Amino acid sequence: MRTSIATVSLSGPLTEKLTAAARAGFDGVEIFENDLLASPLGPEEIRSRCADLGLSIDLYQPMRDVEAVPPEEFARNLRRARRKFELTRRLGADTVLVCSSVSPLAVDDDALAAEQLSALADAAREYGVRVAYEALAWGRHVNTYDHAWRIVQAAGHPALGTCLDSFHILSRTSGPKDLDGIADIPGEKIFFLQLADAPLLAMDVLQWSRHYRCFPGQGGFDVADLVRRVLATGYDGPLSLEVFNDVFRQAEAGPTAVDARRSLLVLQEAVGAAALPEPVVPTGIAFAELVTPDPEPVAALLTALGFARTARHRGKPVDLWQQGEARVLVNTGRAALPHSRRPSGGTPVDGAGLAAVGLESPDPAGAARRAEALLAPVLPRRRATGDAPLDAVAAPDGTELFFCATGDPRLPDWLDDFEPTAHEPAAPDIRRIDHLALTQPWHQFDEAALFHRSVLGLRAQESVDVADPYGLLRSRAVTNDDGSVRIALTVGAAPTDDTLRAQHIALATDDVVAAARRFRAAGGRLLPVPANYHDDLAARFDLPDEELDTYRDLGILYDRDAHGVFRHCYTRTVGRVFFELVQRDGGYRGYGAQNAPVRLAAQHAVRHLTGG
Amino acid sequence: MRTSIATVSLSGPLTEKLTAAARAGFDGVEIFENDLLASPLGPEEIRSRCADLGLSIDLYQPMRDVEAVPPEEFARNLRRARRKFELTRRLGADTVLVCSSVSPLAVDDDALAAEQLSALADAAREYGVRVAYEALAWGRHVNTYDHAWRIVQAAGHPALGTCLDSFHILSRTSGPKDLDGIADIPGEKIFFLQLADAPLLAMDVLQWSRHYRCFPGQGGFDVADLVRRVLATGYDGPLSLEVFNDVFRQAEAGPTAVDARRSLLVLQEAVGAAALPEPVVPTGIAFAELVTPDPEPVAALLTALGFARTARHRGKPVDLWQQGEARVLVNTGRAALPHSRRPSGGTPVDGAGLAAVGLESPDPAGAARRAEALLAPVLPRRRATGDAPLDAVAAPDGTELFFCATGDPRLPDWLDDFEPTAHEPAAPDIRRIDHLALTQPWHQFDEAALFHRSVLGLRAQESVDVADPYGLLRSRAVTNDDGSVRIALTVGAAPTDDTLRAQHIALATDDVVAAARRFRAAGGRLLPVPANYHDDLAARFDLPDEELDTYRDLGILYDRDAHGVFRHCYTRTVGRVFFELVQRDGGYRGYGAQNAPVRLAAQHAVRHLTGG
Repeated sequence: MRTSIATVSLSGPLTEKLTAAARAGFDGVEIFENDLLASPLGPEEIRSRCADLGLSIDLYQPMRDVEAVPPEEFARNLRRARRKFELTRRLGADTVLVCSSVSPLAVDDDALAAEQLSALADAAREYGVRVAYEALAWGRHVNTYDHAWRIVQAAGHPALGTCLDSFHILSRTSGPKDLDGIADIPGEKIFFLQLADAPLLAMDVLQWSRHYRCFPGQGGFDVADLVRRVLATGYDGPLSLEVFNDVFRQAEAGPTAVDARRSLLVLQEAVGAAALPEPVVPTGIAFAELVTPDPEPVAALLTALGFARTARHRGKPVDLWQQGEARVLVNTGRAALPHSRRPSGGTPVDGAGLAAVGLESPDPAGAARRAEALLAPVLPRRRATGDAPLDAVAAPDGTELFFCATGDPRLPDWLDDFEPTAHEPAAPDIRRIDHLALTQPWHQFDEAALFHRSVLGLRAQESVDVADPYGLLRSRAVTNDDGSVRIALTVGAAPTDDTLRAQHIALATDDVVAAARRFRAAGGRLLPVPANYHDDLAARFDLPDEELDTYRDLGILYDRDAHGVFRHCYTRTVGRVFFELVQRDGGYRGYGAQNAPVRLAAQHAVRHLTGG
Repeated sequence: MRTSIATVSLSGPLTEKLTAAARAGFDGVEIFENDLLASPLGPEEIRSRCADLGLSIDLYQPMRDVEAVPPEEFARNLRRARRKFELTRRLGADTVLVCSSVSPLAVDDDALAAEQLSALADAAREYGVRVAYEALAWGRHVNTYDHAWRIVQAAGHPALGTCLDSFHILSRTSGPKDLDGIADIPGEKIFFLQLADAPLLAMDVLQWSRHYRCFPGQGGFDVADLVRRVLATGYDGPLSLEVFNDVFRQAEAGPTAVDARRSLLVLQEAVGAAALPEPVVPTGIAFAELVTPDPEPVAALLTALGFARTARHRGKPVDLWQQGEARVLVNTGRAALPHSRRPSGGTPVDGAGLAAVGLESPDPAGAARRAEALLAPVLPRRRATGDAPLDAVAAPDGTELFFCATGDPRLPDWLDDFEPTAHEPAAPDIRRIDHLALTQPWHQFDEAALFHRSVLGLRAQESVDVADPYGLLRSRAVTNDDGSVRIALTVGAAPTDDTLRAQHIALATDDVVAAARRFRAAGGRLLPVPANYHDDLAARFDLPDEELDTYRDLGILYDRDAHGVFRHCYTRTVGRVFFELVQRDGGYRGYGAQNAPVRLAAQHAVRHLTGG
């Protein structure tokens, strides 16, 4: 019996995974689409690498949400599928996995599903490929193996079979009887068998309670509603937090207790039992401050990006670099970077780090009052001679947040502390800071979101998982209403590596292609993106060839949502900071999370090549 | 509105938790029973520490499984409860939490529950204490807040009220309507309100699938049954592993791939698709080998335990220390300790470490053949002049497993390599090694259990969670049928600290009191156990006072299961190793896991005092 393993089961870049699988004696692999997209090797190179290692490619998983959709949607899916079948052939694989649809467009119509899967199999056959249809346990309409099999049976197509997956089957069965239907499927119609086990406890309310509780406002419960109801009974005892949480058990008690109290203050405010100063929502990002022992690498990067050193602080070794409304302070007078609460033992990272953020505030003192009421450490106002007294607090990750009013005649202006230089920005490519991405210490992801939400009055978006070659990141953005303040909070999957995670500053441009070209012409180095990524773009979106070639050339990534289009590319990393150039069109709201695994893999590859 | 926090929500020893809660501005705390038991402070000291910090003690949580049980069981519960009410009074608290029973003895009888809770409240009132009854979401018969309230209402006792907990309520409600019943409870009968939030995703099959899959045999699914059914259809494609797992994503690919292949080999064997050499179950522990740069601290400890240096290796700097059938090798010729696969960045620990285990085997060569077939690295047989050729393999954590036959005339004897000294063991306190506890690197807990199960033919017991002051450990024992080989595999909650976790050797004695006394008389230092622990023992078990005094004096811990009684105590730690003296009576099967949090806290306290 041949054995195989999906590349998603192993850690590292694709080549490390393939080597490990071969060394362990597997006969073949399933290539997971993200691993292919993130790999610098083309399909033929992957095929020949596998052949050298004695591995067959038994399955390729490039498609989801194919079937039981309206005709025009299916036509798009079929067009994409043909590209993927071609790719499958180039890989030397003969089976493509199609999971049952989770798309909101999918309808509950087995006949339509069978008809479209049959058409898909027709196309597959032209490329010498067959299609294995699998029921996802959370498929929208098809979520059991026997349902998927009924559809395959109805289609009656030789190039269409089913794929059985032990997780999807056993996670939904209540006993062995539910498996009796397997005996009704002819073996030759089972095109593939995927195996995984899982702990039973993860679904259990006891385990949920013992390991995953969090402070009110950090989870998904409407705790405020419950508290309102209890207070309405006349209850006058304490509000008491009882939280069993694996992460809190390891985090330093002092900061956790502060987070806990903040959560209760926010809750008390929500139920009308406490009056706090109103939130003052920031209206923009005044500046981002980098600290670095050596200003040169950052200065070179900023110069290539079109920034000019427009001013220097009157009393401190701080330069202001500006372009449009984007301002970056480069501070060589401070050594310390923000640290996680408990030393993680990771390699210390020298070089530039993002230490402070200036937030435009219509009422800086009010913003600081609310922050203080919500237990944010208030930082000493900088009262050196000539320094404007700035209100500042520390975020949970140690980042300093300054509440500023740039150019408001009624308020002290932080820019008054700076002596202008003769320089003017050369190229008006950058309009402003689009967003900042701040890496949170492992213990503080949920706290950080609650902090930014409650203290700054920002709104938290959904948390998304992003696969890095060596682990899973979580990312959650907090924004104000018009998107002029966007902060992406990110955390690694384990406490070991948070100091290694990069922070970044995303710069908004109206023309990312021009900005990237100018950056490169000025000697800047863009992050190279694997060709497989752009091949996939061609399959996913109907983009003209020359546009794709431009993206390929510049390493520009592309995403679309219901509102608009997002194009973005990245500089190389200096210290722990890199820059992103982003162009948002038509009101695109996201951050290109879909592309993040490719970016992360590309950054790992560069680090590997340069050893840094 | 007063605010409070349960000590279980924070990390560290009790005093650190109290200080953190006070600093953050909480008005009070709930004292969690384990925190009290593990604290060196007595109840009055805790009370006065809280008073100094400006904290009230709002709740004490000492009891579970009280109500709706047979009369004789309830009499025992009431006796225990009186002790706890007395303790509550000493703490200066006025409310005790009683959670709805999860005991298999509990019956579904609201009238009985009300009657017994009323009797409990009668007793509480004598101590000036009141009882708050709460429905656990996983309570055996009572698991909703309205059910708990109906019972409280039926009891109609002034010292009995209900406690509402947002987790237990919201984890079971499908919408706000389910909360309407709260309005029917008079506020003065709500004695307490506990708050926690929780992520909704932990219950979702999609999240389960994306984060918690594992290799076959590492989880709870009957994957073999599924595979048998699929093979019966005539399926002849590959068995392919598709595992999404947050931990594997971070673990080095090579060893993960080997674990994956081993899991498939075991699965193939189970379904009759592969023939492997039969497992050769070990029949005892021949020796445990410590490596240490400095033999003196270990030698002093072994001497005080009654071991004698009975032999020395003919060619290597290895001493054999023996007592009864317990043999410990002390090796000063090797520097390396087993390492986790990926350096965790924790502080390197010098000093003694457990590097190898000798397993008595009826067929050492056969055992090695099976290990090799299951991809365990086979170690070079020691073929120095005069060395018996021993079969040895490496366990996933790097521990070397030697397959030996001590004193079997048909087989080479490892003892032949040792030159006896004139020493004989002085005190025959120790009979043999009862069990070994091996700390596993973070990535390898499930792999380690599968390895020991499949390679050595041992049986894996249930995994248990054990609270350490700074995190949650998991522990799982693997044993042979007669219990002559027991290995407890333990793992920390995070990758940072595995090198700091101690390993230990548990020594079986027929009289732990005599052994502990002799150890102390010989200058050995036992781990001191907090007095609160023994006060609780008095409440839980009907032990004579002088017996309790003895346990108190020697730091002996006590446990009971359906089969018998377990008494055990600990030496101080040398390097990363300590010894445990254990007395099993009447077929007790466990390892005193109930007592592990107290032991871990005591070890943290000692380390804190001595700085090491």
